[in-house]
Amino acid sequence: MRENALPLLAITMGDPAGIGPEVTVGALAAHRAVCHPLVVGDGRVLQKAAQRVGQHFAPKTVSDAAEVRRHPADVCLLDLGNADPEKIPLGKVSAAGGKAAAEYIRRAVELARSGVAAGVVTGPINKEALRLAGVPYPGHTEMLAALCGGPEVAMMLVHGEMRVSHVTTHVSVREACDAVTQARVLTVIRLTDEALGRMKLPRRRIAVAGLNPHAGEGGLFGEEEIREIAPAVDGAKSEGIDATGPLPPDSVFARQRAGEFDAVVAMVHDHGHIAVKTVAFVRGAGGEMTAAGVNVTLGLPIIRTSVDHGTAFDIAGTGVASPASMVEAIRLAAQMTRTHH
Amino acid sequence: MRENALPLLAITMGDPAGIGPEVTVGALAAHRAVCHPLVVGDGRVLQKAAQRVGQHFAPKTVSDAAEVRRHPADVCLLDLGNADPEKIPLGKVSAAGGKAAAEYIRRAVELARSGVAAGVVTGPINKEALRLAGVPYPGHTEMLAALCGGPEVAMMLVHGEMRVSHVTTHVSVREACDAVTQARVLTVIRLTDEALGRMKLPRRRIAVAGLNPHAGEGGLFGEEEIREIAPAVDGAKSEGIDATGPLPPDSVFARQRAGEFDAVVAMVHDHGHIAVKTVAFVRGAGGEMTAAGVNVTLGLPIIRTSVDHGTAFDIAGTGVASPASMVEAIRLAAQMTRTHH
Repeated sequence: MRENALPLLAITMGDPAGIGPEVTVGALAAHRAVCHPLVVGDGRVLQKAAQRVGQHFAPKTVSDAAEVRRHPADVCLLDLGNADPEKIPLGKVSAAGGKAAAEYIRRAVELARSGVAAGVVTGPINKEALRLAGVPYPGHTEMLAALCGGPEVAMMLVHGEMRVSHVTTHVSVREACDAVTQARVLTVIRLTDEALGRMKLPRRRIAVAGLNPHAGEGGLFGEEEIREIAPAVDGAKSEGIDATGPLPPDSVFARQRAGEFDAVVAMVHDHGHIAVKTVAFVRGAGGEMTAAGVNVTLGLPIIRTSVDHGTAFDIAGTGVASPASMVEAIRLAAQMTRTHH
Repeated sequence: MRENALPLLAITMGDPAGIGPEVTVGALAAHRAVCHPLVVGDGRVLQKAAQRVGQHFAPKTVSDAAEVRRHPADVCLLDLGNADPEKIPLGKVSAAGGKAAAEYIRRAVELARSGVAAGVVTGPINKEALRLAGVPYPGHTEMLAALCGGPEVAMMLVHGEMRVSHVTTHVSVREACDAVTQARVLTVIRLTDEALGRMKLPRRRIAVAGLNPHAGEGGLFGEEEIREIAPAVDGAKSEGIDATGPLPPDSVFARQRAGEFDAVVAMVHDHGHIAVKTVAFVRGAGGEMTAAGVNVTLGLPIIRTSVDHGTAFDIAGTGVASPASMVEAIRLAAQMTRTHH
C-alpha cells in the first residue's frame, strides 16, 4: 500500500523580489488536497512572505529526494539559501533576484527529469532580472525547453474551461506570419490533443483559429489560412484528431467558452492571450489586477504549469497579490500527473 | 416648445433573408424611450418577422421627411417594397437580398446627411450577397465611408464599458503591419477622443495598444511601437488628448474593462474583436450565439451605429435571434445624437 497517493510537485517561488513568494505561500492551503508540495526557493524570503500574507509556514526542510519521500504528509522545502532578503530588496529588478530565480527552475526541472517530482509548477520570474543575471530567454517557456534539450514546445493558457495553445509566441507579428507553417501548426494541434488527454477531458474537440481577419475571407485578407493552416487541419484529421478550422479568430474563443470546443489553437501570442486575459483578469479589491489563468508548457518531457502573471513588482511586499493563479497552476499540474481517470 | 425631444433615428432592417428584420422588430419596445424610430426596409418582410418573434408591429408608413415629422410619437416605416418575401427565401445568400439591403443603407444615409434623421442604426448585411448584387465592399464601414465621400474612418466596438477602436480592420495581418503608421494611429486616437465626447463620458482616458507581443518588448519583438505608435501617442498628448501607450495588447483590454481607461485603440481587427467578442458573445438558450456589442463608425459626417453580428442565416426565420445588440446600437446612437449632457 502506498503511503501517499498524491503527486509530488516541485513548486518554484519565482523571483525573490516579486509576488512569487507571497502567492506560493498563499496557495499552500490549496496544495494539501491535490499534491505533495516541494517548494524550491529561499526559506528566509518565504518566511517573510508568509508573515505578510498572514499564513503559517512551517515546512519540513529537505536536502535530497530520499528525505522528501520520508515526509509525504508535509509541505517540504528545498532551501537553496540563495536570496538574502537584506541584499535583494522587494519590488526591484536585480541580477541577484534573476540568478536565484533561474536556480529554482533548474533544480525543479532536475527533480522532475530524474523522476523525483511528478511535475513542476513555476512562480513568476522577471525577464529583465534574468537578462542581468546572464540568463537571456524571451520567456519561461523557452528557458524550460532549453533545459530539457530543446524539444518543440508550445504555450497553452488555461482558465476555467478556456484552453488556448499558441503556434507562435514571443516574436513580432511580422515574424509570426512567417512562422505560421503547415508543419508547426500540425505540431501544435498534436501537442494540444495530447494535453487534453493528459487533462483527462472526455472529449478533445480542437478549434484551429485563423491568422487573419475572418480567417482570411477566402484569400481576400491573407493566404496563410489556405496555404498553411487548412492543410495542417486536414493532416490532423487524417491522424484521427478532432480538429476544426481555420475559424475566424474573433468568434472562435467565444465559441470555445460556450462549450463548442475543448481547446483553441491560436496562431499568434495576442490572439490567445487577449482572449484568456480579458476574461481572466479582474481588478481586485485592493486595486490590483488579479488572474486565475494558468500557463502550461506542451511538448516538454515533464509536466509543467505556471502562473500566468508576472512578478508585479509594484505590489510585491504589500500582501495584496491574489494566489488564485498559483492555486490553479498547482491544481492543473496535479490533474495532469494523475495516470488514471 | 418642441413636440418631441427624442432624436429621429433611421434604422435599416439589413438583409431581408437574415435575422435583421427579426432583431429590428424585436428591439422596437426598447426604441420608445430613447428615440423616434424610422425603420427603413420592406413592410412585408417586417410584418412576417414580427409574427415570428411575437411582436405587434403597426408602424405609420411614411414617404417623406415632412410626413415623419407629423408623427413624432409613432414608429415610422419607410417601406421601400424592394424585398418580396416570395422571391427572397429566408436564410439564403441572394443578389436580391444584397441589393435591397444596400438600398436601405443608401436611403438611411441620405436621411441623415440631409438632416432629417439625427443618426443611422444598421441591421446586419451579408458581404457575399452585396457582392452578388454588384456592391463590393469588405465591410459595412467601408460602404458608409464611400457613401459619405470617403472620409478617413475607424471602426469602434462597444460593449458595456468596453470601447475599442481599430487602426486597421479588413486587411491581412501582413498588410496591417504596414498600415500601422504614425499618421493613421494619431487619426484614430483623435477620432476615439471625439467619440468619447459624443458619448458624453465624463473622462476620455485612451489606452493605445501595441501591435506586437508585450508591445514590442523594447524593440525585441518588433519596432512598430517605437517607430510609429509611441510618436503618435506623443502627438495626441501634445494636443491635450489623455492618451497612454503603447501598452501590451494582452492586458490592456482587461485594464480597460476594470475601469482604468475609457477606450482602447487597437492596431488590428482581431485584437479588438477578440477582446470584445470573447466577453460579449454568449450561447443563448436555443444554442445560438447572441451578442450585445455595438459597432460604431467614427469619422463619418453622420452618427452611425450597428449591430456587431452578421445575418446569421442559419437561424434566420426561427425567431430565436436575440435583439440585444440592436437594442444597444439604438441606445448608443440616441446617446451620441444628444447635444447636451
